[in-house]
Amino acid sequence: MAPRKKDDILNAALRLLAEKGYEGLTIEGVAERSGVNKTTIYRWWPSKAALLGTALVEARALDFDVPDTGSLRGDLHALLDGLARLLTTPPAADIAVAALGAAANSPELAEAARGFFADRFARERPIFERARERGEIGDSADPMTIMDLLAGAVWLRVVFRQVPLDDGFTERAVNAVVDGVGRPGDPKAGRPARTGG
Amino acid sequence: MAPRKKDDILNAALRLLAEKGYEGLTIEGVAERSGVNKTTIYRWWPSKAALLGTALVEARALDFDVPDTGSLRGDLHALLDGLARLLTTPPAADIAVAALGAAANSPELAEAARGFFADRFARERPIFERARERGEIGDSADPMTIMDLLAGAVWLRVVFRQVPLDDGFTERAVNAVVDGVGRPGDPKAGRPARTGG
Repeated sequence: MAPRKKDDILNAALRLLAEKGYEGLTIEGVAERSGVNKTTIYRWWPSKAALLGTALVEARALDFDVPDTGSLRGDLHALLDGLARLLTTPPAADIAVAALGAAANSPELAEAARGFFADRFARERPIFERARERGEIGDSADPMTIMDLLAGAVWLRVVFRQVPLDDGFTERAVNAVVDGVGRPGDPKAGRPARTGG
Repeated sequence: MAPRKKDDILNAALRLLAEKGYEGLTIEGVAERSGVNKTTIYRWWPSKAALLGTALVEARALDFDVPDTGSLRGDLHALLDGLARLLTTPPAADIAVAALGAAANSPELAEAARGFFADRFARERPIFERARERGEIGDSADPMTIMDLLAGAVWLRVVFRQVPLDDGFTERAVNAVVDGVGRPGDPKAGRPARTGG
């Protein structure tokens, strides 16, 4: 399939998902919106869940750049700012919220959501490899936990808590995870002695 | 209304939400399931969104204890373990995921979700007040950002990423936020000098 045609199909699927929800999304609707024949779409994707699985990973609307600023703090800040923008700027915001909100309630779509997050995490990994090479994090720091904390914070605040992201939010979140919120001098909350990293 | 009767109504609403989704939930269904007359329910709650707003905040199925272990680290760990249990143990898990997944796509239900998170945060606040009194965190640490990070991490992993929570997850997440993942000796990633807390 020509890349241009594929893009049209994936974008149509995501737009319709945002407009009509998962229940309202049909391959017929995607065919009509994208101008591509229904049987062509079915030949590539046997179901709307399969189509969304590809769309969530490959569509340009949800694409993101992996920053390389020279420091862990800078990379995480840029990454989180990008996610905050994605989750608050139409049409990507409506698409992401509709798709992933629906995924929570649909085992079919959950597979697509898993693919989306696995793909993003694979692309984020080099940030942590570079940080390790620079000696910014120890071997015991777990990249997926760090991404769960940071991306989870943006999701929770924007989508669930529905409190606006003030200017300092992504910076506060990154600093909390990089520096820790406990006071180093405190025996209970402070940074414990580390061995090997 | 008698507390017992109210509890029956709220629980019926949440169970039906988990079973049928927001679209499938009706006041008629709640009346049938709870054995309370439909007109009685309508007298207290004019819509299913209003009923769910009360149910998310007051139902015992989603209740949680605010820990007081004597340290910030202990309190956050206990709190996060409780949330992890809630989001992975039926029926609360199905209810929470159905309600908050649906909230992402429904402006009506979003109000209920906002109420749910605002209520929880109000109850979590004393954890941070006690930590401040003990000198475990400085005045500049922002409690809502800390809760966004920690609760967001559990939500992201359980609901979106759909990776099982291994035994060490909540501990890793709490330690990352309390201690920080950056190495203190590093000029770029380390803890910056603090002024006034």
